[in-house]
Amino acid sequence: MPLVVQKYGGTSVGTPERILNVARRVLATQQAGNSVVTVVSAMSGVTDSLIKLARDVSNKPTEREMDVLLATGEQTTIALTAMAINALGGKAVSLTGAQAGIMTDGIHTKAKIANISPRQIRKYLSEGYICIVAGFQGQTVQGSITTLGRGGSDLTAIAIAAALKANNCEIYTDVDGIYTCDPRIVPNARKIDVIAYDELLEMASSGSKVMQSRSVEFAKKFKVPFEVRSSFNTNRGTIVKEETPGLENVVVRGVSVERNQAKVTITNVPDRPGAASRIFTALADAHVIVDVIVQNVSAAGTTDISFTTNRDELEKLGTLLNPIVKEIGASDVLKQEGIAKLSVVGIGMRSHSGVAARLFEALAKGGVNIEMISTSEIKIAVILDEAKIVEAANLAHEAFGLAQA
Amino acid sequence: MPLVVQKYGGTSVGTPERILNVARRVLATQQAGNSVVTVVSAMSGVTDSLIKLARDVSNKPTEREMDVLLATGEQTTIALTAMAINALGGKAVSLTGAQAGIMTDGIHTKAKIANISPRQIRKYLSEGYICIVAGFQGQTVQGSITTLGRGGSDLTAIAIAAALKANNCEIYTDVDGIYTCDPRIVPNARKIDVIAYDELLEMASSGSKVMQSRSVEFAKKFKVPFEVRSSFNTNRGTIVKEETPGLENVVVRGVSVERNQAKVTITNVPDRPGAASRIFTALADAHVIVDVIVQNVSAAGTTDISFTTNRDELEKLGTLLNPIVKEIGASDVLKQEGIAKLSVVGIGMRSHSGVAARLFEALAKGGVNIEMISTSEIKIAVILDEAKIVEAANLAHEAFGLAQA
Repeated sequence: MPLVVQKYGGTSVGTPERILNVARRVLATQQAGNSVVTVVSAMSGVTDSLIKLARDVSNKPTEREMDVLLATGEQTTIALTAMAINALGGKAVSLTGAQAGIMTDGIHTKAKIANISPRQIRKYLSEGYICIVAGFQGQTVQGSITTLGRGGSDLTAIAIAAALKANNCEIYTDVDGIYTCDPRIVPNARKIDVIAYDELLEMASSGSKVMQSRSVEFAKKFKVPFEVRSSFNTNRGTIVKEETPGLENVVVRGVSVERNQAKVTITNVPDRPGAASRIFTALADAHVIVDVIVQNVSAAGTTDISFTTNRDELEKLGTLLNPIVKEIGASDVLKQEGIAKLSVVGIGMRSHSGVAARLFEALAKGGVNIEMISTSEIKIAVILDEAKIVEAANLAHEAFGLAQA
Repeated sequence: MPLVVQKYGGTSVGTPERILNVARRVLATQQAGNSVVTVVSAMSGVTDSLIKLARDVSNKPTEREMDVLLATGEQTTIALTAMAINALGGKAVSLTGAQAGIMTDGIHTKAKIANISPRQIRKYLSEGYICIVAGFQGQTVQGSITTLGRGGSDLTAIAIAAALKANNCEIYTDVDGIYTCDPRIVPNARKIDVIAYDELLEMASSGSKVMQSRSVEFAKKFKVPFEVRSSFNTNRGTIVKEETPGLENVVVRGVSVERNQAKVTITNVPDRPGAASRIFTALADAHVIVDVIVQNVSAAGTTDISFTTNRDELEKLGTLLNPIVKEIGASDVLKQEGIAKLSVVGIGMRSHSGVAARLFEALAKGGVNIEMISTSEIKIAVILDEAKIVEAANLAHEAFGLAQA
């Protein structure tokens, strides 16, 4: 019998009515002739309430105990989902991460899955049960409860699909799939039928927050194809899988947009070894996530180094960088808000040339000025004035013909 | 180092502030030179909210899943309590029932403790940790989560105290201890310093709901003395322990009162074997809890059988008993509300005579009529008009000199 692993996120199980809706979908999947393992998240809002409770008793809650606390969120959902399926005449059983055999390392609040021993899942499936597994959680070999960090429920589903060699892995969410661009920005954006892991990774790192990168990376590593689709309708979603020759025929898969960026420029950095290293080591130590970096050597033996980061990081950068600027003998730190990043992504770029040229031409024709450029093997990213980002996204979407299937 | 097991109920951990209060008490106990294991219940109200959620997805929630759901209540409290202790500079670790090694049978929602393997507790205690253990829950040998039913957290504490051979077991609650009578009924009721297991058992079954009978029975079986005391002050409470010659010197330990009783009389029951059995088997099958039963054989070869039960049961009794009355050839079912039960309890009754006489005399002098009488080795219970119960309790309390230490 084919085995399907499904995952429903917090919005999909956010109320008792929605849990019943999920229960009906799960039952229908079983009745269509499949064995089913369903991974669920905490009901939306529950995790935030638990974090608030923790803050009420401690300024800096112990991470081990935070995991014990947060794990109750998914445990509540698995029990309710199994009850709902049973109430509808099905046969379901709930399993916590530990019971499902999700073994992790001991890094609390962001544990990594070490291995999966799905003995209990296999036993219950062989008895005709639907297994409802708590996402986001596992346990160490010593038996401590751990959680997997943001996006952890997707990771649970993909890891179980890998361990059980599932025929299908379906990630249900509140959107219909992955789009060629955010439809709120580009109204004629189209749902993508099939996308390669690497493309989704580049789009995810460029603001398309359907899934966390680590879940996609995990799926890529273990070659688990999965489908991102909506829990509120029965439309087909987007299949995410390994690259195939067919996938490479499309040069640009999608356009993604990231707002709330800031640009920082350090002027007149002496052009000698170690200067850039000094700056970016300090930023890394302070956990500032730096995105695009651009450096041009000028004739006078000094250079301007620019980088972008999230606007929220800007405040702490002044006190961090000013002493370093003095130390390395640079002139100044200039900060610019109100910028955004636009990326075009596609594995077809590897074998097609002229993509950058076509993008720059489209933006130029529309009068959009490019402030910075960054490229990878399958992505071209440009930094723009945030006020122009909607126009730019529509121009890029049009230039690569993304509205047509 | 002496080992203390403490248990805090739902009211004592009902808010983050109260959890911090408990954390301070636990820390103080450790700082006084003890190893400490603390058992906590779900925050008050949490269990009811979870039950409501279950009812929202199912008319008849699966008992296995109910246990998975309810167990999150205590899991939340253990995490918060451990965090609170850590925030106050202590060193605490939380353990679910399963992690604490509470092994049970597989009877979901009312599991019995089979054995305790406190390996993890011992390990953490030896490292100087305070162990915060989830009450009310355990797991089967197959690894399913179970709960112990009402009063289960007391049971957890007493079982752990037995397994670890603790020096003290303290049951913290929202009252100061066990009283000679409910102080809302008898204003000069006095806190009892020491009481025997059997006395508390008789008082518990007579309406003094400080603890569930099964926890007291468990403590009696494993000879675990414990102290019932308040988590809101530092007063000494009531020590519950095995009978000693000293304890037997007190004839009556306390008076307990149960309101909301009802009396049912079946008239003219033919005086032949099997008639009473037919009635009480039907009541047992319908899970009606029958308390006092009285039967007098009349001269005419028929008898009236009376029994008391909780008033809430009265409604379903008509439809249940009417066909049986017809079947066995009795006349009628008479129902009487507005009655109450008064019990005087004391192990000293075993070796002292005249207790019943003194009670009846006191009630008679006060003009209180007795409707039914029931006695055990260490208890005399009388059924009275509910309107007279406060007066009767004060008369009995006075007659046995309970206000004096």
